[in-house]
Amino acid sequence: MGSSFRHRVRVRYSDCDPQGVLFFANHLTYFDIAITELWREAIGPYGDMIDAGVDIVVAEAALRYRAPVPFDDEIEVSAEVTRLGTTGMTTRLQILRDGEVASEGELRHVFVTAGGNEKREIPDEIRAGLEPYLAAD
Amino acid sequence: MGSSFRHRVRVRYSDCDPQGVLFFANHLTYFDIAITELWREAIGPYGDMIDAGVDIVVAEAALRYRAPVPFDDEIEVSAEVTRLGTTGMTTRLQILRDGEVASEGELRHVFVTAGGNEKREIPDEIRAGLEPYLAAD
Amino acid sequence: MGSSFRHRVRVRYSDCDPQGVLFFANHLTYFDIAITELWREAIGPYGDMIDAGVDIVVAEAALRYRAPVPFDDEIEVSAEVTRLGTTGMTTRLQILRDGEVASEGELRHVFVTAGGNEKREIPDEIRAGLEPYLAAD
Amino acid sequence: MGSSFRHRVRVRYSDCDPQGVLFFANHLTYFDIAITELWREAIGPYGDMIDAGVDIVVAEAALRYRAPVPFDDEIEVSAEVTRLGTTGMTTRLQILRDGEVASEGELRHVFVTAGGNEKREIPDEIRAGLEPYLAAD
Repeated sequence: MGSSFRHRVRVRYSDCDPQGVLFFANHLTYFDIAITELWREAIGPYGDMIDAGVDIVVAEAALRYRAPVPFDDEIEVSAEVTRLGTTGMTTRLQILRDGEVASEGELRHVFVTAGGNEKREIPDEIRAGLEPYLAAD
Repeated sequence: MGSSFRHRVRVRYSDCDPQGVLFFANHLTYFDIAITELWREAIGPYGDMIDAGVDIVVAEAALRYRAPVPFDDEIEVSAEVTRLGTTGMTTRLQILRDGEVASEGELRHVFVTAGGNEKREIPDEIRAGLEPYLAAD
Repeated sequence: MGSSFRHRVRVRYSDCDPQGVLFFANHLTYFDIAITELWREAIGPYGDMIDAGVDIVVAEAALRYRAPVPFDDEIEVSAEVTRLGTTGMTTRLQILRDGEVASEGELRHVFVTAGGNEKREIPDEIRAGLEPYLAAD
Repeated sequence: MGSSFRHRVRVRYSDCDPQGVLFFANHLTYFDIAITELWREAIGPYGDMIDAGVDIVVAEAALRYRAPVPFDDEIEVSAEVTRLGTTGMTTRLQILRDGEVASEGELRHVFVTAGGNEKREIPDEIRAGLEPYLAAD
């Protein structure tokens, strides 16, 4: 229980800014990539969920930046679920360089009807798929 | 006749790369902004066309880069229509710094059914709206 | 005192995602645009500060998303300074559609030596420039 | 001889537009990723070249779009060198979905002094590294 998910990404040139490092907003983009990959492993392709009429939207985000993330580095993005509510899910994410935390944050997603954007309960099979990624604490 | 359209844009930090200048792919993004603004002036908001069941997709693009475009510069993107066919439109675009050409290119758009992506004829009112922007040559 | 800064932006097509609205990470990008424009009004062009050997980096970010921000909308990004410390500055930002808050958040910036990335005190002239934008509370 | 290079990429949500497919300008971004990876295989990390005082800038780009590239698809970007001049290099690139060409194009890069942006000859070791990727025709 509490197994955290990790996904390797290479930092793209186009995601870096004139300071030569990953642009601060793009840390959220890399968090998003990890969520998509967590989905693939835990539940299935994100697009299948949308085809089934379910979508997720971000309601809240928080980030702390610890160290710059340079162009062309191969980093890991870790993700674990910290809360599975009735209609919402909170995840904790980290960008790791050689095991060191370069940034960390939380995302709160809300489940909605695809297209319609109305809040809805987390479908049972998605809840079951995410439970193994629930953090122990 | 042949009036060319111009739109001022401030170069964003996030659109620049570690060389401190507008990332080369983002010249196309700035061309796209100019097309959206040309649409607003010539025809109306882009979204109204989609609501009416018509969309445009890019079929071809070409660019020549003359000079770097630095962060925070206020540039102009010029656009003129060089060809209005049955289902397609070609535009010539330039990024100008103090009147000097920093990059220039062409886009060929094809008109399609919104969502469906099937080729269709240019609607009459759109053709009429674009004709004043046809280049003289 | 406590005058808040506002900057108008048109939501670009390329900043929107398959849900047809501003991608959640790009809210931070729009916050960044507002900081750059606040700088221009309060202090001068951002690049002048870098030329003078001073830069700012983001240490912390937080966002709450209230409502989707559709493509082609003309929005306002408001910014006010909530804290001016010795080496750091906190700002409160909002994305407004017709005066309604679509998203809001905070950024904590740290002043560093340009290039070197070592923490440094806020230069006096920058502090003086930002003080009029300090929130009353 | 004429071995073409291929790199697999997963299409990111944030790279897609409201049409649900890879934004047209981002095809260039994916070409750029392939160039960086070709570099790694043929010569070494791109950053090492910059540290050695050499950089490349794009002088010309051309693209033909054949088919939309949907979100979450795993695509291949192929790259081969079609010309190695004195100071410039031309490459031919393709985005492939299940072996089918979704887009194709050419990039012309010019070698410059890093930072200075002055044209310079292709260093011998870089030329030697790229020669195996020269197209047969």
